[in-house]
Amino acid sequence: MQIEIFTTGGTIDKIYFDAKSNYEIGEPQIVELLRDANLTVDYKVTSLLRKDSLELTDDDRQLIRAAVEKSEAGNVVITHGTDTMISTGLALQGLAGKTIVMTGAMQPARFRFTDAIYNVASAITAAQTLPAGVYIAMNGQIFDPLRSRKNVEMNRFETV
Amino acid sequence: MQIEIFTTGGTIDKIYFDAKSNYEIGEPQIVELLRDANLTVDYKVTSLLRKDSLELTDDDRQLIRAAVEKSEAGNVVITHGTDTMISTGLALQGLAGKTIVMTGAMQPARFRFTDAIYNVASAITAAQTLPAGVYIAMNGQIFDPLRSRKNVEMNRFETV
Amino acid sequence: MQIEIFTTGGTIDKIYFDAKSNYEIGEPQIVELLRDANLTVDYKVTSLLRKDSLELTDDDRQLIRAAVEKSEAGNVVITHGTDTMISTGLALQGLAGKTIVMTGAMQPARFRFTDAIYNVASAITAAQTLPAGVYIAMNGQIFDPLRSRKNVEMNRFETV
Amino acid sequence: MQIEIFTTGGTIDKIYFDAKSNYEIGEPQIVELLRDANLTVDYKVTSLLRKDSLELTDDDRQLIRAAVEKSEAGNVVITHGTDTMISTGLALQGLAGKTIVMTGAMQPARFRFTDAIYNVASAITAAQTLPAGVYIAMNGQIFDPLRSRKNVEMNRFETV
Repeated sequence: MQIEIFTTGGTIDKIYFDAKSNYEIGEPQIVELLRDANLTVDYKVTSLLRKDSLELTDDDRQLIRAAVEKSEAGNVVITHGTDTMISTGLALQGLAGKTIVMTGAMQPARFRFTDAIYNVASAITAAQTLPAGVYIAMNGQIFDPLRSRKNVEMNRFETV
Repeated sequence: MQIEIFTTGGTIDKIYFDAKSNYEIGEPQIVELLRDANLTVDYKVTSLLRKDSLELTDDDRQLIRAAVEKSEAGNVVITHGTDTMISTGLALQGLAGKTIVMTGAMQPARFRFTDAIYNVASAITAAQTLPAGVYIAMNGQIFDPLRSRKNVEMNRFETV
Repeated sequence: MQIEIFTTGGTIDKIYFDAKSNYEIGEPQIVELLRDANLTVDYKVTSLLRKDSLELTDDDRQLIRAAVEKSEAGNVVITHGTDTMISTGLALQGLAGKTIVMTGAMQPARFRFTDAIYNVASAITAAQTLPAGVYIAMNGQIFDPLRSRKNVEMNRFETV
Repeated sequence: MQIEIFTTGGTIDKIYFDAKSNYEIGEPQIVELLRDANLTVDYKVTSLLRKDSLELTDDDRQLIRAAVEKSEAGNVVITHGTDTMISTGLALQGLAGKTIVMTGAMQPARFRFTDAIYNVASAITAAQTLPAGVYIAMNGQIFDPLRSRKNVEMNRFETV
């Protein structure tokens, strides 16, 4: 396996239930997204968590870190809610020999117009082309979690 | 400008005219594709040619090379028909200081299900993360035009 | 004007704001939906309300009834949340000379996969082909609000 | 069965093969289109022909007429290329007790932006609401084949 993809929830996986009139985190949408892309790279998708990233605990972050550490793949992609993506990025520092790229979406993958496909493609590509380390692929750029933030008002990531 | 995107035609830009019942190469579709992705990276799209890549001549390839050479951007993406993408990749060798990533699509960007968005995202990311050189971003992988081919029967790129 | 379309909110118009992590009723989505359909029929879209239909009051229903009564069009389409569509249908009885067709969606119009386009097309067609009266166009059928109900568990309308 | 749907080809069913770089008529797209609409009406889809409508012969039209005549359904929808939809409509006159509605699309159903869903929904609705006869559902209107034409230049149907 060349690339391991872990999903943890967030807007990218949000689905809508009419009866309850609110959003819930559903099955990882990435599996369907990747079907149209005709990938020949070898990858596996594993659902670790299904949470809004504001609800992630320290234990959740340790669970994610342990999964990355145990993975046989050197290239790891993690889909994650954007609100605390940077915090999880900080919790993933120091795993030698792993290129870890986090990504998510501002609009759910189920929407007709969404940034999900672009972001996932960007993360999978970055995982193959960057040296070992932890990165965030959002808004068409690669960010270092140690030197970036989510600008909530503008709804985008930026370097600080 | 961080990234210059040149379009040359190919399936990615194919559009359909009912009256004539055949496909023609239309306006670059990449502009609309990128609108949903909320890019904050600085890029410019320029339409160089609108041709099926089987119809590209040596003069066309020199025109593409000259445009890349003249570009102020160090990171260049070229959308191109897949049938002769490798030939153009060979014609772009030896341009110092430029990271050039070629991509295209097996299904037109106008389709409901298409590999166009994935491929363009992959190319834009690779252009930012790879060292100077010429690359092809297709099927979720990065190929070296000197060591790859299009497998026409399987409709995919592979390393040779 | 041949057809007047009033929007009142409901799932069909739900949009998603990432920051607040909940759904809100947005601009009428019907305008964009109809753009792709190349309609040559003369129609106008007016936003009356932006409410989940569970929150509609008797005053809201009188407002909708007054708008239909005042409309110059003999053919009226109303987009509406599905939960209380039948109640509003009952409040619209007895308007002579008007063919009124209500519709909505189980999945928001913004989704990649939605029943919104089908339902709106069905309602606009029924408004042109049925005699004066009040109808509901959902699940590929035409219902009489006096003899139908929403089966919440099965998430569909049915005759009673 | 309440509604029988016959497909005969045309733009609505056009699919694209990259290798040959031209369009061919594929499997009826209507089956997938209807999946998202949550229809509870009973319908069956049968593929009669897969032709560009300019290539339909008198024999083909007799085959379509025979299929409609033999159908147990009183409500029949026929998807058809737009160029000779009116000619086939004329060949279907005089079938007592049948409401027959023809439709098609200016943009293939596989496109991200298409009139196919709207048109099919309109035809299925008209088949349930109109008296026996032959109709064309296009551009948001219902046309009588005896008094309409396709305006090729404007790419739409109109009354004459």
